Amino acid sequence: MKEILLLNGPNLNLLGTREPSVYGTVTLQDIERQVQSVCDPHGVTVKAYQSNHEGALVDAIHEAMNTASGIIFNPGAYTHTSVALRDAIAGVGLPMIEVHISNVHKRESFRHTSLLAPVSFGQIVGLGSLGYSLAAQALLDHIYKEEKHGENTKN
Amino acid sequence: MKEILLLNGPNLNLLGTREPSVYGTVTLQDIERQVQSVCDPHGVTVKAYQSNHEGALVDAIHEAMNTASGIIFNPGAYTHTSVALRDAIAGVGLPMIEVHISNVHKRESFRHTSLLAPVSFGQIVGLGSLGYSLAAQALLDHIYKEEKHGENTKN
Amino acid sequence: MKEILLLNGPNLNLLGTREPSVYGTVTLQDIERQVQSVCDPHGVTVKAYQSNHEGALVDAIHEAMNTASGIIFNPGAYTHTSVALRDAIAGVGLPMIEVHISNVHKRESFRHTSLLAPVSFGQIVGLGSLGYSLAAQALLDHIYKEEKHGENTKN
Amino acid sequence: MKEILLLNGPNLNLLGTREPSVYGTVTLQDIERQVQSVCDPHGVTVKAYQSNHEGALVDAIHEAMNTASGIIFNPGAYTHTSVALRDAIAGVGLPMIEVHISNVHKRESFRHTSLLAPVSFGQIVGLGSLGYSLAAQALLDHIYKEEKHGENTKN
Amino acid sequence: MKEILLLNGPNLNLLGTREPSVYGTVTLQDIERQVQSVCDPHGVTVKAYQSNHEGALVDAIHEAMNTASGIIFNPGAYTHTSVALRDAIAGVGLPMIEVHISNVHKRESFRHTSLLAPVSFGQIVGLGSLGYSLAAQALLDHIYKEEKHGENTKN
Amino acid sequence: MKEILLLNGPNLNLLGTREPSVYGTVTLQDIERQVQSVCDPHGVTVKAYQSNHEGALVDAIHEAMNTASGIIFNPGAYTHTSVALRDAIAGVGLPMIEVHISNVHKRESFRHTSLLAPVSFGQIVGLGSLGYSLAAQALLDHIYKEEKHGENTKN
Amino acid sequence: MKEILLLNGPNLNLLGTREPSVYGTVTLQDIERQVQSVCDPHGVTVKAYQSNHEGALVDAIHEAMNTASGIIFNPGAYTHTSVALRDAIAGVGLPMIEVHISNVHKRESFRHTSLLAPVSFGQIVGLGSLGYSLAAQALLDHIYKEEKHGENTKN
Amino acid sequence: MKEILLLNGPNLNLLGTREPSVYGTVTLQDIERQVQSVCDPHGVTVKAYQSNHEGALVDAIHEAMNTASGIIFNPGAYTHTSVALRDAIAGVGLPMIEVHISNVHKRESFRHTSLLAPVSFGQIVGLGSLGYSLAAQALLDHIYKEEKHGENTKN
Amino acid sequence: MKEILLLNGPNLNLLGTREPSVYGTVTLQDIERQVQSVCDPHGVTVKAYQSNHEGALVDAIHEAMNTASGIIFNPGAYTHTSVALRDAIAGVGLPMIEVHISNVHKRESFRHTSLLAPVSFGQIVGLGSLGYSLAAQALLDHIYKEEKHGENTKN
Amino acid sequence: MKEILLLNGPNLNLLGTREPSVYGTVTLQDIERQVQSVCDPHGVTVKAYQSNHEGALVDAIHEAMNTASGIIFNPGAYTHTSVALRDAIAGVGLPMIEVHISNVHKRESFRHTSLLAPVSFGQIVGLGSLGYSLAAQALLDHIYKEEKHGENTKN
Amino acid sequence: MKEILLLNGPNLNLLGTREPSVYGTVTLQDIERQVQSVCDPHGVTVKAYQSNHEGALVDAIHEAMNTASGIIFNPGAYTHTSVALRDAIAGVGLPMIEVHISNVHKRESFRHTSLLAPVSFGQIVGLGSLGYSLAAQALLDHIYKEEKHGENTKN
Amino acid sequence: MKEILLLNGPNLNLLGTREPSVYGTVTLQDIERQVQSVCDPHGVTVKAYQSNHEGALVDAIHEAMNTASGIIFNPGAYTHTSVALRDAIAGVGLPMIEVHISNVHKRESFRHTSLLAPVSFGQIVGLGSLGYSLAAQALLDHIYKEEKHGENTKN
Repeated sequence: MKEILLLNGPNLNLLGTREPSVYGTVTLQDIERQVQSVCDPHGVTVKAYQSNHEGALVDAIHEAMNTASGIIFNPGAYTHTSVALRDAIAGVGLPMIEVHISNVHKRESFRHTSLLAPVSFGQIVGLGSLGYSLAAQALLDHIYKEEKHGENTKN
Repeated sequence: MKEILLLNGPNLNLLGTREPSVYGTVTLQDIERQVQSVCDPHGVTVKAYQSNHEGALVDAIHEAMNTASGIIFNPGAYTHTSVALRDAIAGVGLPMIEVHISNVHKRESFRHTSLLAPVSFGQIVGLGSLGYSLAAQALLDHIYKEEKHGENTKN
Repeated sequence: MKEILLLNGPNLNLLGTREPSVYGTVTLQDIERQVQSVCDPHGVTVKAYQSNHEGALVDAIHEAMNTASGIIFNPGAYTHTSVALRDAIAGVGLPMIEVHISNVHKRESFRHTSLLAPVSFGQIVGLGSLGYSLAAQALLDHIYKEEKHGENTKN
Repeated sequence: MKEILLLNGPNLNLLGTREPSVYGTVTLQDIERQVQSVCDPHGVTVKAYQSNHEGALVDAIHEAMNTASGIIFNPGAYTHTSVALRDAIAGVGLPMIEVHISNVHKRESFRHTSLLAPVSFGQIVGLGSLGYSLAAQALLDHIYKEEKHGENTKN
Repeated sequence: MKEILLLNGPNLNLLGTREPSVYGTVTLQDIERQVQSVCDPHGVTVKAYQSNHEGALVDAIHEAMNTASGIIFNPGAYTHTSVALRDAIAGVGLPMIEVHISNVHKRESFRHTSLLAPVSFGQIVGLGSLGYSLAAQALLDHIYKEEKHGENTKN
Repeated sequence: MKEILLLNGPNLNLLGTREPSVYGTVTLQDIERQVQSVCDPHGVTVKAYQSNHEGALVDAIHEAMNTASGIIFNPGAYTHTSVALRDAIAGVGLPMIEVHISNVHKRESFRHTSLLAPVSFGQIVGLGSLGYSLAAQALLDHIYKEEKHGENTKN
Repeated sequence: MKEILLLNGPNLNLLGTREPSVYGTVTLQDIERQVQSVCDPHGVTVKAYQSNHEGALVDAIHEAMNTASGIIFNPGAYTHTSVALRDAIAGVGLPMIEVHISNVHKRESFRHTSLLAPVSFGQIVGLGSLGYSLAAQALLDHIYKEEKHGENTKN
Repeated sequence: MKEILLLNGPNLNLLGTREPSVYGTVTLQDIERQVQSVCDPHGVTVKAYQSNHEGALVDAIHEAMNTASGIIFNPGAYTHTSVALRDAIAGVGLPMIEVHISNVHKRESFRHTSLLAPVSFGQIVGLGSLGYSLAAQALLDHIYKEEKHGENTKN
Repeated sequence: MKEILLLNGPNLNLLGTREPSVYGTVTLQDIERQVQSVCDPHGVTVKAYQSNHEGALVDAIHEAMNTASGIIFNPGAYTHTSVALRDAIAGVGLPMIEVHISNVHKRESFRHTSLLAPVSFGQIVGLGSLGYSLAAQALLDHIYKEEKHGENTKN
Repeated sequence: MKEILLLNGPNLNLLGTREPSVYGTVTLQDIERQVQSVCDPHGVTVKAYQSNHEGALVDAIHEAMNTASGIIFNPGAYTHTSVALRDAIAGVGLPMIEVHISNVHKRESFRHTSLLAPVSFGQIVGLGSLGYSLAAQALLDHIYKEEKHGENTKN
Repeated sequence: MKEILLLNGPNLNLLGTREPSVYGTVTLQDIERQVQSVCDPHGVTVKAYQSNHEGALVDAIHEAMNTASGIIFNPGAYTHTSVALRDAIAGVGLPMIEVHISNVHKRESFRHTSLLAPVSFGQIVGLGSLGYSLAAQALLDHIYKEEKHGENTKN
Repeated sequence: MKEILLLNGPNLNLLGTREPSVYGTVTLQDIERQVQSVCDPHGVTVKAYQSNHEGALVDAIHEAMNTASGIIFNPGAYTHTSVALRDAIAGVGLPMIEVHISNVHKRESFRHTSLLAPVSFGQIVGLGSLGYSLAAQALLDHIYKEEKHGENTKN
């Protein structure tokens, strides 16, 4: 039975728990349930983990090496600063899809570059909590395609 | 009855028609059918248009102002060079989601910045032809949410 | 009898036709009439042309070579990206004055540089539709001065 | 009865007084008379001031706060280096239009950026002494529009 | 009864404990006592925390959300590299004042920019351990002003 | 009997005298009284001077060389552009503390660098008029410490 | 029977038709005849096309995919701005040689970089109309070598 | 009896344990044994520590202050991003030699700069696991030289 | 009787002499014969010189001043670093054409700029050994044109 | 019998011969003897060469192509400026290890980049004359490993 | 009878009057006497002026237009920031030689560029007070040469 | 008896020997005589050397270490590219004064920076052949001052 890792980086634990009138009431737990419900029909388990510690996220990626088939990762602020997470993803060799809840391209310019994008196979950006569900669909599709052969399209 | 515009920029007409062993056999027509099949259950029509001409794409966006409820846009190479398309999207005020078939962040550095991302509400990058179907889901979700109120989450 | 070309670039066709409460009710046709009314007393005809196509604007400049005495040009978004328009202006050798309706220096930084300014003899920026009338006065003045001798002031 | 301030920065006192065969015979006094003649029909007084001292120009802007309705400003070399003049204009809150006699975009690259443009409502560049007269027209138009409501055009 | 968080980042635990002839004998504990003695007359408690772990500092900021009224923060080396701490401060919405013991502007150029300054309301730099006492005065002043109305001065 | 110089740069004369509902009612005179009241208990006189002229500020620093023991300096806009003031401070060898009323790090990027910070012993930024009082405390502390020996802490 | 495409970009239609005393009397038609006369002995047809429209040039490259064996391309101003043309050349996979009539390295710095050079197999720059004839020789040589094996020299 | 600290940063725990046919079978434990065998003849103990956590590495450096005579450090990905580790090394004042297994200068450009190199006395790069043994030789040599006097050569 | 100088810079002596299966068997001597055979019909002698020494290449250019009518120059690695060679070419005033065997625009970015291109009249890049023959044709054409009058075309 | 080339660049002839109290008494001859004594047990000869001439160093590398199995190279100042040496190393295909006596990362910023590092297999920096002995060990290790198979570790 | 202007910028009034043990006892008055003694044999008067005010220096240059034959100018800190002084020199058209007492190239990097150098005919840097005497010799030489014809040498 | 080295870099051998109507008739030999005539009264010998070879110039500087008291150096094009010459000057420890015949600040921007200026004690720029005579005066002055004590003036 397959497992995927749903990994969330710094400050994402605050989602939905603070000022719901402003940030909405979708919590990280809701997102985890959403992703699980995409995976259920395929008999795939979702292991969810959130940490504000870069090192703990690296550890979690290492642990996934032997248990998971792929990673959905919202690296939060570490997107822009962590070479260690990039190396961890490259090191374990699992397919990873990067998710950002907000449209980072409308924000400060230091948020416009991602150290992780080159080691992901795709990014979903700015679609709110829906982005996680779509990422789950894409990751499952990627895993199943990879098992056969793999299409090679180019933009 | 609602309509959305599925807009594809330069060179995307070549998809699937050349060297299928290398680029796969998914053509632009297949992609249009895929997107339509996502929209069908919601009674939404898909108008598809592809052009290699920046000006023709601007014209198409202007025409959508009175007929469409949103735009799925793969601007291809114009992503990185066209202020005119950015201004057109901002000018007509329709919600737009940006799609790229390949993971542009693994390619040349001039492909890492998008002039259009700040006027889109989200981007889906690197997921092959599947990206268009997910974009359709996200656009429909966005249009329906907007009609009520709109969630405000932030990464 | 003299003729001048009034050339407008991408998205300027939208002027005054959309959300008049926000953008005002001055249309591109109003602007063309304004410019004509400045030229009438001098017996000068105004030929007006707008296009969203960079190539069509280049073509229009080439055609003006044999018919017009000068050009009033709002290149819109192509101001910042078009070497082709710069070369066209330099190629036909007609005096050109650049107009921008908004104060581009208050907007995104990529709007602060103009590829066309070095091949214009002057710029009028941020004065709304009035800018076109003032540009017409300046162009007529330039054409008549050139026929005699030309003043050479600097700073 | 309204007053406007006609402010000229460093080295502009040399205009027309040196090598008239090269620089023309238009002096700063001629320019002041020109601007006054545009304002006369509207019953508006022109107060003219030139200084080579950055601090003296700041003082003059402060003094205008209580007496003038707007400013025509050719900041000369201070265009490119003076944050103090920018802050002074922003501080007194008067509408300001920036004038440059020569086309600064054809000159050294350090003349291509203006610290003052973002606190002006418009710029007139490269039109010789005529630029001042057109600026006076635009400033009067701006002042009268502002008293009613204000048009909001953008490009 | 109010509480403020006194937060110190990496390597600040070494203060005063090593080579006292060089670095002085002021320890982090002395600084904590100093800050407490500024707060005592106002009946405000000081909670002090130091960590060399970026993630642990993020956690501490999150925990302060429900207990503290403001933060005095010397982020040490993370000043220049941590987007995660910036997002944490912005996320919890508490007023924060940034303190640096040394004059960072006399040191290496990578120490001249602060990712945290834009999410603080002020900075105190280069004043040694006295800087913490002054920061406490400023934070208390800020908290009390905010409760009434808030002054709005600008440099 | 000791004296300190309280020096204010361009546009700071406008403080509190214009639109009090927006900018507050704290005037430069109020600030001077505040600083004096911090110094009174130590028997230290405050000499206050404001000018919009860079050269006049240089002159004032030179004059302080023989009369003052230290300088509190808000250089306003000259912070970012004046090498002359930097050289004057370095030349007279008096301890100087830099003050900014607003948080310059939230404003335009050209306000993020200070030519004067490397010749000051510290900076206080964003604390409104309170910043001057804290600066006075820090300057007095610095002067008295220097007379004995001087602590050497480092961030 | 083989065919090659001789493609010319914006403003090259003006060659030889304007101010012959300055620009010479070599027209684009003359150049086309020159290139044909190089190809005639090899029984190779030359299809010539010029356009000021970026999109039309992309279309022409696509059409060449099934009919031509190689492309001689003077992209004019689009050399420096068109990612779309680069992608088109890369997409059709035909060998392309880049030609510039003038020595672009003596002109403005934005003309010193070519987006197309990395997808060409070679460039001929600054040799006037002769450059096209030499390019034809090189393209024929390249096509014939490729049919056998290909030499691999470097630097 | 002397001790040295052998410190390894993020992802180096993966060495030799994954895909041995690709990465070789040298594990971190092997490297530790290698370094110990260089130190044994000198009666020097090796304390080995690896962590994926930046803060834990800072802590380990602090702890070494009282127990170790020098540090062999492969900071992995933190080489390029950690000011905290740089400050920790500078703070404890122990001689440190930096080791990289691969030739970082052949990899992405962000790996070409090291924040730690200026606080090390030397670097050994690209020599695989042998680099650690050579580093041990160099560190022992450095410690013994320092105890006498120290040679001062310069490249 | 005319002479031209065929000048080759560092490492070009290795051509064809090492690993012929990889680099082909065309040697520098072959290239010299090729160029001579282009010049023979015009009664022009080719003087060939290769050196790995920048200074020796400068000397050779100086010597050509009195004997040669033009230079074919492959400066190899000195293309990107030698101001001395640029000054030598400018100093002797001979027409020079620059040749590169490989397409330097596909290689490392420091190979994309040429210090010599602005003092050459043209460049031939990426055409292998054929580039030298074409350069010889272009140089002869240039020399003969110059003797009459010179065409002035522009891209 | 194997040979390695010990190559030293500009100014390294001065080592140990000038101001021994400052620079130590280790001469280049001593270093050559040291390296030879590392190689002796393996029956490997050391050929030592020093030159201040870039071209002479290129020549020496070419000559080593047929005689040596590897190169120990301290390129001195040419490290930062010589593309010719980089091309020479790449051209002859011998394994090269780069040595710097001082820690270049503590010196001027133009010394922080090496044009040669990407064509070396490793670097030893800042270890004084000992660095040459360690480099010899590493080069011998590299040559023997290469003869069998080669380990592939990555940082 | 000829006159030259000896102009000194900000902070140069401090020369020799402060801490003579550190800065020497050469005052600005001494320098003026030195320059006069170089000019005396040629019957040339020296008019000396120093100011800390940029505007006052501009005024002085304007006044020299009708009285002086050339200018010796140490612009001090304004060297690096004043476009106004550059324009003043260019405006009056007098030959100017730039002098700096210290070697500015050994100091902060912002002192390495001079806005005035391109409008001077030469610079003398780092030679202490002697630099003024040499500058006087060069200026006199320049003035007398100019009256005849002028040599044209080039570096 | 003292000796100074007069060192000239690449292309300076061409001085005065080519197109005397353009470049003047002052040859390098004339300059050497000029410098000797400045030195004669002080009993100082001038050793003159010119080379186009960077390495030969390094050698010459090394040789001067034991024979000369100082160096007058016009490094020509190597000014902007040679770290080796900089290191040679720093290595031998002789006082050096840098001379440029033309005003390099009016030429291409790559000529505005000098790698040698920081290791010279002064520069004389733009004064034609006279610059060498003035440099000789300054070098003699420097050598004699150094023998006593040395004045320390700044800016």
